[in-house]
Amino acid sequence: MRSMLLSRRDLEFLLYEWLRVQELTELPRFEEHSRETFDGFLDLCEDLATQYFAPHNKLGDANEPSFDGERVTLIPEVKAAVEAFTKANLIGAAMDAEIGGLQLPATVEAAGFGFFQAANVGTTGYLFLTVGNANLLAAHGTPEQVERFVQPMLEGRFTGTMCLSEPQAGSSLADIVTRAEPQPDGTYRLFGSKMWISGGDHELTENIVHLVLAKIPGGPAGTKGISLFVVPKYLVAEDGSLGPRNDVALAGLNHKMGYRGTTNTVLNFGEGKHNPNGAPGAVGYLVGEPHRGLSYMFHMMNEARLGVGLGATALGYTGYLKSLDYARQRNQGRAVTAKDPATPQIPIIEHADVKRMLLAQKAYAEGALALLLYCNRLVDLARTAADPAVEREHTLLLEILTGVAKSWPSQWCLEANNLAIQVHGGYGYTREYDVEQHYRDNRLNPIHEGTHGIQGLDLLGRKVVQHEGASLRLLTDRITGTVRTATETGGVAAEYAAQLDTSWQRLLAVTAGLFADPAAAMAQATVYLEAFGHHVVAWIWLEQLLAAEGQEGDFYAGKRAAARYFFAYELPKTAPQLDLLASGDRTTLEMRDAWF
Amino acid sequence: MRSMLLSRRDLEFLLYEWLRVQELTELPRFEEHSRETFDGFLDLCEDLATQYFAPHNKLGDANEPSFDGERVTLIPEVKAAVEAFTKANLIGAAMDAEIGGLQLPATVEAAGFGFFQAANVGTTGYLFLTVGNANLLAAHGTPEQVERFVQPMLEGRFTGTMCLSEPQAGSSLADIVTRAEPQPDGTYRLFGSKMWISGGDHELTENIVHLVLAKIPGGPAGTKGISLFVVPKYLVAEDGSLGPRNDVALAGLNHKMGYRGTTNTVLNFGEGKHNPNGAPGAVGYLVGEPHRGLSYMFHMMNEARLGVGLGATALGYTGYLKSLDYARQRNQGRAVTAKDPATPQIPIIEHADVKRMLLAQKAYAEGALALLLYCNRLVDLARTAADPAVEREHTLLLEILTGVAKSWPSQWCLEANNLAIQVHGGYGYTREYDVEQHYRDNRLNPIHEGTHGIQGLDLLGRKVVQHEGASLRLLTDRITGTVRTATETGGVAAEYAAQLDTSWQRLLAVTAGLFADPAAAMAQATVYLEAFGHHVVAWIWLEQLLAAEGQEGDFYAGKRAAARYFFAYELPKTAPQLDLLASGDRTTLEMRDAWF
Repeated sequence: MRSMLLSRRDLEFLLYEWLRVQELTELPRFEEHSRETFDGFLDLCEDLATQYFAPHNKLGDANEPSFDGERVTLIPEVKAAVEAFTKANLIGAAMDAEIGGLQLPATVEAAGFGFFQAANVGTTGYLFLTVGNANLLAAHGTPEQVERFVQPMLEGRFTGTMCLSEPQAGSSLADIVTRAEPQPDGTYRLFGSKMWISGGDHELTENIVHLVLAKIPGGPAGTKGISLFVVPKYLVAEDGSLGPRNDVALAGLNHKMGYRGTTNTVLNFGEGKHNPNGAPGAVGYLVGEPHRGLSYMFHMMNEARLGVGLGATALGYTGYLKSLDYARQRNQGRAVTAKDPATPQIPIIEHADVKRMLLAQKAYAEGALALLLYCNRLVDLARTAADPAVEREHTLLLEILTGVAKSWPSQWCLEANNLAIQVHGGYGYTREYDVEQHYRDNRLNPIHEGTHGIQGLDLLGRKVVQHEGASLRLLTDRITGTVRTATETGGVAAEYAAQLDTSWQRLLAVTAGLFADPAAAMAQATVYLEAFGHHVVAWIWLEQLLAAEGQEGDFYAGKRAAARYFFAYELPKTAPQLDLLASGDRTTLEMRDAWF
Repeated sequence: MRSMLLSRRDLEFLLYEWLRVQELTELPRFEEHSRETFDGFLDLCEDLATQYFAPHNKLGDANEPSFDGERVTLIPEVKAAVEAFTKANLIGAAMDAEIGGLQLPATVEAAGFGFFQAANVGTTGYLFLTVGNANLLAAHGTPEQVERFVQPMLEGRFTGTMCLSEPQAGSSLADIVTRAEPQPDGTYRLFGSKMWISGGDHELTENIVHLVLAKIPGGPAGTKGISLFVVPKYLVAEDGSLGPRNDVALAGLNHKMGYRGTTNTVLNFGEGKHNPNGAPGAVGYLVGEPHRGLSYMFHMMNEARLGVGLGATALGYTGYLKSLDYARQRNQGRAVTAKDPATPQIPIIEHADVKRMLLAQKAYAEGALALLLYCNRLVDLARTAADPAVEREHTLLLEILTGVAKSWPSQWCLEANNLAIQVHGGYGYTREYDVEQHYRDNRLNPIHEGTHGIQGLDLLGRKVVQHEGASLRLLTDRITGTVRTATETGGVAAEYAAQLDTSWQRLLAVTAGLFADPAAAMAQATVYLEAFGHHVVAWIWLEQLLAAEGQEGDFYAGKRAAARYFFAYELPKTAPQLDLLASGDRTTLEMRDAWF
């Protein structure tokens, strides 16, 4: 049976025909792997997602976690799914074999993990936060921390969280006030409150490993004074056995529009509810060096941003497949040219406007998936590069693409879900079908791990200009490389290449001009992000078109049609955005509070 | 206290300074009225909406109607609100005084009714359907039908519905199969199933008056064979007393993403559950002449389309006001040029990107409200015109604008709600705040009363070409009239006028060229609708700018800023849409099912 989660055929195309990930197995890191092990992993992910995650997606939405003041209760299906995932050793899918991981390429891991997000993004939340947490600690923790906290996460006995935001400091991490008091024994005691902590409490596992940003008194002001701590829910003895409850208390659950299966919490550290060893404060262990916490956390945050982009993509993708299925089955109306009511009604997929809505979804979802896999391959290439210059190149490219890979799917795969509802008509608005939940779930993605506004500021104010524009130049090299190949290929590929090249050169010129008035430039950062993102995805579609070149059959015809759609309907949307950016418009800067 | 539903100051501007509705009181129909009675009506609506509707908006959402197989249960607050509304005689706000209405202009009624939709669109649903039903019957029913069904609706004893769709025929009314068998006594017996019937069952009132489309056997095929029937839930005796239960049975409730307070039902007519007088079938009474049912129903449907547009607008508007309030209170981050963490954080309204999101909401919500009031004034002017040529002019103009007034707010005030969530950040995604519900509620509006796709086909295939383009010419006359005045005014008004004029002339040229390939033209009908709608609202903003000309103060500065935003950020979005339309693109037409 054809999966309604992601298309395996598309994944095969993207992984093997376009990105050629089978060639990664020639690298020492992946030499134990082969296309067969990759396919086996994808099979496993699709099977587990179908068997353990998809069946309770609606149930988890309708029965969100509850908190009685002591314990958080979830539907039991969540625990069964979490166990199935961890028993298959999927937490460590891309982690080093040395510590028990499968040492798969991140690209393959992402492809497999997309099935879980498409099936049930709420339940998956607990697991993917754990993966990110474990990866951070594996990279920056001491061997003892790895043994005490990462190993149990790999084994499925612990889960992990990331604790950044505070009630008075959402996106503004410089303003966090949680403090970490050093103790004579080298540990710390934490005091403060953390907000929006996903997976912050539950009874799914024996323990929860919180990674907490806090300030050591006397350190530098702002972000330069932030350190990172491991703060477990239960203390862990040297032999790995669980000790007393740490002073991390659940203050309450947030009740959300979607993504309801994942608990979202306010956590109080050191409020005195639980006092391990009789002293006040939550026991925490410093990760790495003091005051460098934000740089370590960015390790996890960048990974999480790709994870958010992948989640948005997976929801857009499954919504697309479900609305496609609906459009094939639902008969309604007749062709514009055949209105005789005596003739039978036709499947709605035959209406041009329905095809438009399906093509848009296909272009958004497949384009986003391709972008995410491309970024994950950069992770693999950077990690395995023998030459530091090559590593740096992949890293710089990844840095300028990460914000786009987070925000573009969050915007356009949400729009895909919007269109999936519209294809279903009234049915799509009911909870009898899946797509309304996908739309609600997906609405979180433009917010968490940095809003569109934050990503725009980061792109224009940091990534575009960093290292004298080195990241932007590298991206331009890639784009012009693709343009060159497409031009040589001729036909529509050459036409699209010319269109992309002209528009990208204009974007570069506009970018250069923007900094004449930095305040006006930064005021338009979100518009810039949108225009930039559409160019990146146009390039990704041109890449896909080239990978489909010379191939026969419906699948490749579909790729060509989606590329055609993107260049006819989507890339042109950036022209007025670039006009606006070039105009130096100051409408928003000059707007005053009192005028609203 | 400043209302968070709609802005009274803005309503005063739109009604009295721009549309000059006080001048309607010079017409015989409205001679009993004055600006004071209009203001009194607005006060009443705002008060009732605030007191009886807003307080249970979340409650109704969290406790949706339930059906135990016999009865539908709603939270009691709904009944109290319905009674407060009907006791104030608001069902008949715009209806003839002769039958007990207040005979207010439709423009003023719409302004007042917007408060209820902003406060609680779910509870309001029952009432506005009743208004539409009563208006249809008052216009096309017999005096006896008016007495028996309309009077009790005015008194709040009955509510009304419209029953069009069927499970096998959503938007395709030609394919309905509900049949109405004529009886010797002149009545009919109906058999069939109706789908998506809002307010189709409940215990709020003594009786429910269903207006049902059905086919009399032997009539013409397709839409030409559709007749309209009154089918009450309980039969009504000649003296007005309630008789036995009619055979209209609730088959079930649809459970929706939003708009949860309004029951949405599947109704079975004549299935035999209730057999009045022992014979099979639901008793129905023909409205008007046989086979003309669809034209009568369009009376209600056009009114309902304006009502949907108004509801979308009201949700966009209240979401705007709430996110504005939040942005003023929430401190977060610092100016781009002042990153010193020792300085205090600033209210987020000071960030350019937040101002952009607020300005966009203001431009969408105030633009949509202005358009809706403009359309309702056309209703008033058509209804009161002494000269049939003038009446025709207003009617033709109203016809080409109705689909835009339905679809544009449904698209852009939903986007306003999306931005309202984004301004709130994570809080906006929680059910602790209002905006996530507004977003869910508003998502219905692009679907019911004709999807965007249907409105696009209607605009391009019917309204634009009808009477050799008479409607389009009339609209063009209005737009060019405004352009002329703005050009004479000079300054930015003249600049925007030139921009609008150029773009509108291009739209006209593209429209004329489209019909060289009607299949390709109709395939782009939704894109056409979007481009058309943005031009209409640009015109409406230019109108507002002119009405604010020469006025001092923050309010008028705000109008100028929103107009500036619309011409800088929004109207330019139509350029690539017009390019696409002009290109004769056939991407969607040539797409094949097998390629997806």
